[in-house]
Amino acid sequence: ANLVLLPGDGIGPEIVAEAEKVLKFIASEHGHEFDITTGEIGGCAIDAYGDPLPEKTLEPCRNADGILLGAVGGPKWDDPNAKTRPEVGLLKIRKELGLFANLRPIKPYAALIDASPLKKHIIEGVDILFVRELTGGIYFGDSRSWEENGETVATNEMTYRTSEIERVVRVAAKAAQTRNKHLTSVDKANVLEVSRLWRKTAENVVKKDFSDLKYDVVLVDAMAMHLISRPRDFDVVVTGNLFGDILTDEGSMLPGSLGLLPSASLGEDGPGLYEPIHGSAPDIAGKGIANPLATILAAAMMLRHSLNLIEEADRIEAAVESVLNAGHRTADIAAGGKSLGTVEMGEKVL
Amino acid sequence: ANLVLLPGDGIGPEIVAEAEKVLKFIASEHGHEFDITTGEIGGCAIDAYGDPLPEKTLEPCRNADGILLGAVGGPKWDDPNAKTRPEVGLLKIRKELGLFANLRPIKPYAALIDASPLKKHIIEGVDILFVRELTGGIYFGDSRSWEENGETVATNEMTYRTSEIERVVRVAAKAAQTRNKHLTSVDKANVLEVSRLWRKTAENVVKKDFSDLKYDVVLVDAMAMHLISRPRDFDVVVTGNLFGDILTDEGSMLPGSLGLLPSASLGEDGPGLYEPIHGSAPDIAGKGIANPLATILAAAMMLRHSLNLIEEADRIEAAVESVLNAGHRTADIAAGGKSLGTVEMGEKVL
Ligand SMILES: CC(C)[C@H](C(=O)O)[C@@H](O)C(=O)O
Ligand SMILES: CC(C)[C@H](C(=O)O)[C@@H](O)C(=O)O
Repeated sequence: ANLVLLPGDGIGPEIVAEAEKVLKFIASEHGHEFDITTGEIGGCAIDAYGDPLPEKTLEPCRNADGILLGAVGGPKWDDPNAKTRPEVGLLKIRKELGLFANLRPIKPYAALIDASPLKKHIIEGVDILFVRELTGGIYFGDSRSWEENGETVATNEMTYRTSEIERVVRVAAKAAQTRNKHLTSVDKANVLEVSRLWRKTAENVVKKDFSDLKYDVVLVDAMAMHLISRPRDFDVVVTGNLFGDILTDEGSMLPGSLGLLPSASLGEDGPGLYEPIHGSAPDIAGKGIANPLATILAAAMMLRHSLNLIEEADRIEAAVESVLNAGHRTADIAAGGKSLGTVEMGEKVL
Repeated sequence: ANLVLLPGDGIGPEIVAEAEKVLKFIASEHGHEFDITTGEIGGCAIDAYGDPLPEKTLEPCRNADGILLGAVGGPKWDDPNAKTRPEVGLLKIRKELGLFANLRPIKPYAALIDASPLKKHIIEGVDILFVRELTGGIYFGDSRSWEENGETVATNEMTYRTSEIERVVRVAAKAAQTRNKHLTSVDKANVLEVSRLWRKTAENVVKKDFSDLKYDVVLVDAMAMHLISRPRDFDVVVTGNLFGDILTDEGSMLPGSLGLLPSASLGEDGPGLYEPIHGSAPDIAGKGIANPLATILAAAMMLRHSLNLIEEADRIEAAVESVLNAGHRTADIAAGGKSLGTVEMGEKVL
């Protein structure tokens, strides 16, 4: 299998290095050939090529079976007047590879449940899969700004078409069929025309092909509340790009350990893109203390979803869980206690 | 002073009735003349006039000193194919009266801190004032839908102009000056052009006229996380209409008691609109068990902000606090324990 690693910026290279060791170990143990290449994306690509996603990086990704990304961005590339920004690389790779469905599982680890900001009786048993639309909506709609009556006006369009909604709802509904058969669609249909199309389309898809599911719709503001007050009531949650950005980040706080959450971005066919959901953490970059577990779990997701190596994925996930159960912690989840460095944590998993 | 009450739908009439008693009591005790009239908005106005905000309701509001709203909406008016909806009345009154700044204080009551879904060490000491832009952004931008290549496309425009951003940032910055002198502006400037205008404009306002404030900017997805993990780090938070809708609702869960949170919507001059932030709760409407405290606190906010009756507002707020400290609870905050009805709770406050 062809795998592309895109370490990116900040702690990216350190954490991807640990995931790479795990992938190589799995390959040798299970007799697979992983042909691993590395590319540049984000700030490091701006530095090297003046482009956060040069064709040199994109081309091998197009032909890959799976892509593992670290993180992009940092203060060095934060100048609002800069010609381009690291995030542009991220948005472009999603669009170019047609990665329209972003899957984010939110499931607390028993060993870390005390780290949740939520009370135990609320967080216990939570198991949500967010499916966020990733290549449409206001992220990719037209934008303009102009001068009018001596002031500036700026606008972005939030646009969805039937087919864009249908395909991501299908991904979510199929996932729900393999889980607790409960699908929730989130919109703002009481205010937005685009949400009314979302609601109607989602309902049609579910009625037609997924009538075995329990299905409900929730407004985005209400969902922001329910996610804190009764997160156990949800199974699969599907929503648009912007609402998904906000709600998945809110949801990522629930387990109390951002450093453990992976995500997968999938298209119709072609490679999937896998990454930890945390950022590039420039403040701790190069110190060897970043938590590699989310990236290792992202590698496991890659084996599962893009290479269909279920047993191998299970093995990695079990290793992470047992490392946590054994009490091993990186600084971010040590709650002030004893902690391991990035490489040591990677070794524990190996 | 001219006051207009708009009880609305569901539990609206029951809770506004209790607030009205409190207002009348305050008037007689402190020797004020409150000329109180009542109007219809939302579903009940659709039933009576086929319009969720008829001119008959709007006209007295224009000439009022303050407006107290209950809540609008309910399953009866939920048909997606209906000609109009209760929420349209709410959006229209905001726009018609130029109520561009929505103020939502988030401050837990000591007596109810155990009801918070967040752990005590996180929620204790939280005191946030959200200032949400209320008459612009995607709520009021152009919207369209059309057929294209055999499918439907729908779009909403998120638009802001310099002056709209400036005036709401000013309201927030002034509020911060009377509080802990810390202002946070929330946007999505790494993706949206309209957010880049927001960020630039907000920074200019603060630099020019509010250099005494500590000022920072946070992305909306990050804010959705911080609000749960470290809410104590914020004082005044200003943001656009849609982000404010989501974040204030998320924030409203923090104190663990939705039934206690009021909000104020203010314009440049003219009357302010005051309301509880909870909805019309059709499931418990007419049962006499709704919590009237948020509406009573909204009435206190009206006295403070629109009538400049500070002492009177203080008195109402102190009464609510002492009623809670004495252990009185309506069903929503009783945690299964003994509870009072709507009228009984109103009497306790009186
Ligand atoms: C970096 C940013 C453009 C990106 C987004 O908003 O999609 C990030 O927040 C994410 O969720 O992956
Ligand atoms: C009812 C709805 C239109 C409204 C909004 O989205 O503004 C409500 O959620 C609010 O926050 O007041």
